[in-house]
Amino acid sequence: MDNILNLPITTLSNLIRTCEVSPVELIESTFAEIDRHNPRLNAFTALCREESFEAAKQAEREIDDGQIRGALHGIPVAIKDIIHVAGTPTTCGSKFFSVNPSQPDATVTARLKAAGAIIVGKTNLHEFAYGVTSENPHFGATPNPWDTSRVAGGSSGGSAAAVAARLCAGALGTDTGGSVRIPAAMCGVVGLKPTYGRVSVQGVLELAQSLDCVGPLCRRVADAAVMMNALAGYDGGDVHSENRPVPDYTVALGDSISGMKVGVPRQHCFEGLHPDVENCVAEAIGVLEKLGVEAIEIDLPSVPDAHQATLTILMAEASHFHQRRLAEHREDFGLDVREILEDGQKLSAADYVGATRSRKLARHEFAQAFETVDFVLAPTAPVPAPLRSMMDTSDGSDSNLIRPRLTQNTRIFNLLGLPAISVPCGFTREGLPVGLQIAGRWWGERELLQIAHAYEQVTPWHKMSP
Amino acid sequence: MDNILNLPITTLSNLIRTCEVSPVELIESTFAEIDRHNPRLNAFTALCREESFEAAKQAEREIDDGQIRGALHGIPVAIKDIIHVAGTPTTCGSKFFSVNPSQPDATVTARLKAAGAIIVGKTNLHEFAYGVTSENPHFGATPNPWDTSRVAGGSSGGSAAAVAARLCAGALGTDTGGSVRIPAAMCGVVGLKPTYGRVSVQGVLELAQSLDCVGPLCRRVADAAVMMNALAGYDGGDVHSENRPVPDYTVALGDSISGMKVGVPRQHCFEGLHPDVENCVAEAIGVLEKLGVEAIEIDLPSVPDAHQATLTILMAEASHFHQRRLAEHREDFGLDVREILEDGQKLSAADYVGATRSRKLARHEFAQAFETVDFVLAPTAPVPAPLRSMMDTSDGSDSNLIRPRLTQNTRIFNLLGLPAISVPCGFTREGLPVGLQIAGRWWGERELLQIAHAYEQVTPWHKMSP
Repeated sequence: MDNILNLPITTLSNLIRTCEVSPVELIESTFAEIDRHNPRLNAFTALCREESFEAAKQAEREIDDGQIRGALHGIPVAIKDIIHVAGTPTTCGSKFFSVNPSQPDATVTARLKAAGAIIVGKTNLHEFAYGVTSENPHFGATPNPWDTSRVAGGSSGGSAAAVAARLCAGALGTDTGGSVRIPAAMCGVVGLKPTYGRVSVQGVLELAQSLDCVGPLCRRVADAAVMMNALAGYDGGDVHSENRPVPDYTVALGDSISGMKVGVPRQHCFEGLHPDVENCVAEAIGVLEKLGVEAIEIDLPSVPDAHQATLTILMAEASHFHQRRLAEHREDFGLDVREILEDGQKLSAADYVGATRSRKLARHEFAQAFETVDFVLAPTAPVPAPLRSMMDTSDGSDSNLIRPRLTQNTRIFNLLGLPAISVPCGFTREGLPVGLQIAGRWWGERELLQIAHAYEQVTPWHKMSP
Repeated sequence: MDNILNLPITTLSNLIRTCEVSPVELIESTFAEIDRHNPRLNAFTALCREESFEAAKQAEREIDDGQIRGALHGIPVAIKDIIHVAGTPTTCGSKFFSVNPSQPDATVTARLKAAGAIIVGKTNLHEFAYGVTSENPHFGATPNPWDTSRVAGGSSGGSAAAVAARLCAGALGTDTGGSVRIPAAMCGVVGLKPTYGRVSVQGVLELAQSLDCVGPLCRRVADAAVMMNALAGYDGGDVHSENRPVPDYTVALGDSISGMKVGVPRQHCFEGLHPDVENCVAEAIGVLEKLGVEAIEIDLPSVPDAHQATLTILMAEASHFHQRRLAEHREDFGLDVREILEDGQKLSAADYVGATRSRKLARHEFAQAFETVDFVLAPTAPVPAPLRSMMDTSDGSDSNLIRPRLTQNTRIFNLLGLPAISVPCGFTREGLPVGLQIAGRWWGERELLQIAHAYEQVTPWHKMSP
């Protein structure tokens, strides 16, 4: 058998059911790997070692009794340390919360547990999820498992690095401007940002209320579908949650994608690309075409304004949320986060209203585009993981300069609330992973997973490990 | 026959179809009445006399040819002068637009015309629809037809006064914080604010983009249903329009309302009421109970914050829209509008974001309330039409003080996008009309019209004329 830590969730899950893999052995192997690699990767802010072994023993007993909780029974997963897990404090990667008392499980944590998942630890992140490098001044940086001189991407850098390095089978991230998809792309894993309101954010610290989404990171598209089956659904305790029927996200996996139409906004999302990123994405389009997909160039004139609008809305909402902390203890923020929070405080209501106007126009334009195409495709990030040496943490401005660049193709989908996935689509000549982003219609995660899965099935990129 | 100008749209429409009333005679009577009363009421900023006679002749020819355009064939209606009507400038009650060139028909104007309506004129309003008195410093005030020492209410004061005084059979208003419902209540007519996104706002000058709705004013609930049949529906040219199926709004009229549940938020919407208003609404609840409706006291703790949030959002959005005019020609605004626009400019993005947070919480709370009750009921306004002498136009502050008071029960339904209707429910001892407000579920205009119609059928208030 292949090293079990390399196996995707779907395979592991079957092996656990058939007693070919024991949850306890799996947790033992997982923690052995964590102990081996985490000192270098710093992917975790906290480990739930004892709880995990207890949970694994319990999972094993349940199997012996013929009880399977769900599709994640005995699967080791990690949770971004901005999401509450009972028994461990939520630090949010911040000095403010480093001695935070533990809170009850967030809805998403509880849902993963109910499906049988074992929470192995809390993952490192960009401070307060407000950045794209995961160079955290309070908890240390999470470097990229493919090249530790590079950033892991962020803000869910710890989750992406842990999944890429096989320290867990899946993980949760949060995505406000690209924070699941960007580290997924840079670490060579799958990352899904669901439709806004699809997955509960109850028990998740806010960054920007109208943009925040929780989403899975994993090594296979089918794993993301399995995790979504556990995560998705209405939560009366979350004012942003929408009460809509939830499909089985695994059911269309394997169905043909021939005849589907992918819009390519070449004018807006393909500028200033690293040449290797450009090549990888061009090849990916070719692969999709061979699968019968029609690639159509589309023009979305609202995009430039919408890009700017997302920054305005993000900055205004984040600064509102952190208002008191900023007034009382600004020195406790890292430099880059403090700088952008203070910039956000200077925005006027008119600035915000102008941004919501752009948002409405873009939403309208995308709704019309989705009458012609089924998906919109772009590179997840225009460049591969930047060098960590470019991020001078003694000066917040570096991190703040890279932020709009790395989120240039991702953040608009937060603005519009659309679901978007990043899947591995190749490597640069330096051996850094490249991510392909596909966005779908509102509530269209199932079709999004279907096309991403079809692409994955005929490409080798997801099989590579750092 | 009763004076045809007293007849509701539904009756008139039948008489026109059966050739018992001629569209030309109807327009002649209408303009005779306008000439008699408009000098005193100043309900119109412009009359479309020649166009109306031409249209009436055309309507008559069409009937002779057996062609009926729709349910409004030959019906004289008036349009608030913030909505474009081809051939007449849209003044918005403002000095800025007093010499505005004419624009093509707004979608709602075109829809009314397509249903056969004849546009007799543009109605006066509070400047830029930003106020509740219709004491317009540029075009003169529209006094209340029941007592010209009183205001007509606003901002659609001209439309409400024209309908009440029988100068037209129906009219369009716009409602951003109560601007259809408040003048409807004060002039003793029916006014409906539809669900946000239900009726197009294309070709309607903005006041606050996330709150603005166009709605009908008329003398019978059934007339509002007929007008809604013409008005409702998706408009691809309006980014706020929602693409949802449109029911026949007349189809449930006459159906029993027994067993329906009405929530009464006594704690939040019944404070500081004029005693006569309190009595009228208490009686109305008794009437509904006799019809088999269950009145349930409900608590909506989010309401106080939501009330405040509506003002913040309204002020921020209006000030953003008028930003340039305010910077370049502040002296051209009336004092009250200038004052509140300048106050709106001082709001920060954090203020606005805080308000959207309250909005989300209230939306959530109302969604939960609507699992228990079918409607929410309150007095439309806490007091009858205020005295015009209380509105010192040389000092904008009077008008701005009365604004939050008169909108205290209406504006939350703009914040939440919920449909709400005002129907006559009695008179004060001084003989001033009182309005009953009923709000329904999102997209529930049909049920709203059903209950309002059932109430109307067993009460005499809609039959009174000033």
